[in-house]
Amino acid sequence: MILTVTLNTALDITYRVRSLRPHTTHRVSEVVERPGGKGVNVARVLAALGHEATVTGFAGGATGEVVRERLSAVPGVTDALVPVAGATRRTIAVVDELFGDTTQLNEPGPQIEPAEWGAFLDRYEELVPRASAVALCGSLPPGVPVGAYANLVRGARAHGVPVLLDTSGEPLRRGVAARPDIIKPNTGELAELTGSHDPLRATQDARRRGAHAVVASLGADGLLAVTPEGRWRAAPPSPVHGNPTGAGDSAVAALLSGLVHRRPWPERLTHAVALSAATVRSATAGDFDRVSYEELLGRVAVSGEFSAA
Amino acid sequence: MILTVTLNTALDITYRVRSLRPHTTHRVSEVVERPGGKGVNVARVLAALGHEATVTGFAGGATGEVVRERLSAVPGVTDALVPVAGATRRTIAVVDELFGDTTQLNEPGPQIEPAEWGAFLDRYEELVPRASAVALCGSLPPGVPVGAYANLVRGARAHGVPVLLDTSGEPLRRGVAARPDIIKPNTGELAELTGSHDPLRATQDARRRGAHAVVASLGADGLLAVTPEGRWRAAPPSPVHGNPTGAGDSAVAALLSGLVHRRPWPERLTHAVALSAATVRSATAGDFDRVSYEELLGRVAVSGEFSAA
Repeated sequence: MILTVTLNTALDITYRVRSLRPHTTHRVSEVVERPGGKGVNVARVLAALGHEATVTGFAGGATGEVVRERLSAVPGVTDALVPVAGATRRTIAVVDELFGDTTQLNEPGPQIEPAEWGAFLDRYEELVPRASAVALCGSLPPGVPVGAYANLVRGARAHGVPVLLDTSGEPLRRGVAARPDIIKPNTGELAELTGSHDPLRATQDARRRGAHAVVASLGADGLLAVTPEGRWRAAPPSPVHGNPTGAGDSAVAALLSGLVHRRPWPERLTHAVALSAATVRSATAGDFDRVSYEELLGRVAVSGEFSAA
Repeated sequence: MILTVTLNTALDITYRVRSLRPHTTHRVSEVVERPGGKGVNVARVLAALGHEATVTGFAGGATGEVVRERLSAVPGVTDALVPVAGATRRTIAVVDELFGDTTQLNEPGPQIEPAEWGAFLDRYEELVPRASAVALCGSLPPGVPVGAYANLVRGARAHGVPVLLDTSGEPLRRGVAARPDIIKPNTGELAELTGSHDPLRATQDARRRGAHAVVASLGADGLLAVTPEGRWRAAPPSPVHGNPTGAGDSAVAALLSGLVHRRPWPERLTHAVALSAATVRSATAGDFDRVSYEELLGRVAVSGEFSAA
């Protein structure tokens, strides 16, 4: 079982409007709801890849009930969310049919009380020993200590369970210092962590700060990985057009899958790039197109060198 | 008891953002939820004026549960909503702190199945004979016949219960033909109904189409009423600044209150204008400021003439 942690789960709502014009009234033509938050998305992709995934974090209120109800309908995903008094946040993606792009409104998430945080730590402690890998994903809701991920990284490492961290800002900075096995920042998050806008330099610096392996997402240019076994770049064969929502979560799922299957890094990166690109190409935001995935697997270019680093 | 009908109830959500910029991501700094839909708002104001109000219409899904839970906490309001399989719609008002105005996103509402519409008609038939007045408010959700309000107007009139209709478009056109006691269109709705942009001419035309009394909302200029007893204009003493959300619903509540108290028209209009203006002035959208209301009551200017029409 792969455990994914989403402390700030969400009910992701997509609205389709003709054209979003500030200060006017819009009739929404289509409403789509699905459980969200990075770790929830990662678990859904893992399940689609044939893994057993367990989701933990918090869920509360009417929105939390909808999240849990929908999750229970996803084969291969087990709900181990901890109930809280506050309501799970909504995120609203307003798709503009005229411009074809999206405006995002993200609620902050419920206030987590100390007893609720304690209940989560107990649940995590219960789940980690049964996990083959742990992914810690996304932002922290109000009330969760900023050092939360550092604490959870140490908890996984104490049980010898490999841990991937995908977050940003101060929670990332503190989490990295606790020596996670993998972090997967994008270039913005890397620059914020290290102060450097040069991806290779920033990636190397992030390793020095504690991460065993750093897989930097370069957007349309693919991935840059600096690991104890060497460093590689992996890129899709050509620019991929579509909706990038969830592409990063698909890359995380592929990295976890490669980790538990003990695939060599170039193979992990090939899968991560192909799955990311197949997610961008999918008609439904956050899902991946299986045919594209299979087809892209043979066409990802990986270049790199083994190192003694 | 005054009965208000809201076929398309809503969970009204207000988001506060720094500034709404299309095609970017926003962190929502404040989330406020309340039960909505015009008839629900009217009932809340009626209850605040000391009336017993009963709310009917449809509620379903997780959003419907939140609406019912919140309604149950409002003293003086009785929930007689009919459960449906679909989910009650959300409306999102995004308040832009920089511009101080609002962008509105309205979901269409759940599909109402024929059996659900039948269950509503049974509930309405049960409630109407116990009502001193009925208000039919707002848009129709998908699946409700466009002649719904005409049917409900006839149902109330068959029991000798006075009925106010506040809607727009084709449901208004058909409803008016069923001879409601009062309609309360704004100038846009009146123009759509009659083809005339002259408020007095349009108001007179709307009466010829079947409405016994027409109270046209002229926005900041107050109200124009053409009734069997005469015609009047009522205006606030000076332009009122604030949030106009719910001002129309407050006017409807005042008109219903005046109707059941058998107040003369000039008095009804004075209350309607004062209550509307006190709603615009209130810090909370849709609530009215009681001090402003009392103060404005003495300062509304009503001019008009009794007629033999």
